[in-house]
Amino acid sequence: MKIKIRKAKKSDSKEIIRLINELAKFEKLAPPTLSAKKRLINDAFGRNPLFFVLLAEAEGSIVGYAFYFFTYSSFKARKTLYLEDIFVTESMRRFGVGKLFFKEMLKIAKAEKCARMEWCVLDWNVNAINFYDKLGAKPLKEWIYYRKLI
Amino acid sequence: MKIKIRKAKKSDSKEIIRLINELAKFEKLAPPTLSAKKRLINDAFGRNPLFFVLLAEAEGSIVGYAFYFFTYSSFKARKTLYLEDIFVTESMRRFGVGKLFFKEMLKIAKAEKCARMEWCVLDWNVNAINFYDKLGAKPLKEWIYYRKLI
Repeated sequence: MKIKIRKAKKSDSKEIIRLINELAKFEKLAPPTLSAKKRLINDAFGRNPLFFVLLAEAEGSIVGYAFYFFTYSSFKARKTLYLEDIFVTESMRRFGVGKLFFKEMLKIAKAEKCARMEWCVLDWNVNAINFYDKLGAKPLKEWIYYRKLI
Repeated sequence: MKIKIRKAKKSDSKEIIRLINELAKFEKLAPPTLSAKKRLINDAFGRNPLFFVLLAEAEGSIVGYAFYFFTYSSFKARKTLYLEDIFVTESMRRFGVGKLFFKEMLKIAKAEKCARMEWCVLDWNVNAINFYDKLGAKPLKEWIYYRKLI
């Protein structure tokens, strides 16, 4: 099967929303509300995008997406490519789509002179964790992530 | 003692670098190299800043800094204020400088319509963890942070 990774366009919005709903179900999280979905599309495809979207296409269908943006490491004094979300539709797993997404993002990170690529994973998502370990990525076990709601 | 939180200017660079070296020592991490320090100042004070700097001033001296930037939550479809670094010089701790920094950043986060503020802490930094817990922040225990070097 031929799989192509490409940048998303605004006309892909419906397909992106379909996959987000599927991811929410998989992650056992509430999907974004309707107004959040509208904001998301504006934030991705507006004049100053707040994040970037890559899509995986197989036989004319969108089968996965990756959302990323750039953070900054003050100690490296370099940008970091931060992967906010990666998702491949269930029927298309084990075909190497995830690997293609990472290959593309690592290429982008290099071009942007990033020192690192980072992301988070839910601790019960063993398949994803195995995949990340095989990529040569390392869990940052000594760091605790904190959040305060506004 | 009167403590003032204000935005940093390029002319504050020397003081910022001095405090970064102090933070590296405290965190038991290697400080940024000379070329990294130069990039850091350019990245903070260039035309398109990659991150933002707040400073704490007490009696004419710079006694602390906070580096932050904006990330994005695809599920909230809102920006997040991400605190990359916060540091208060040792002699000035327990005077409420950290609290003033958080107050200012929460104000900025609200103005920017963020849904959250987030940051990481080293697991042995008990004083910081106690401070974050008192702020009402929550550790994201089910998420594992992953990193891949470029």
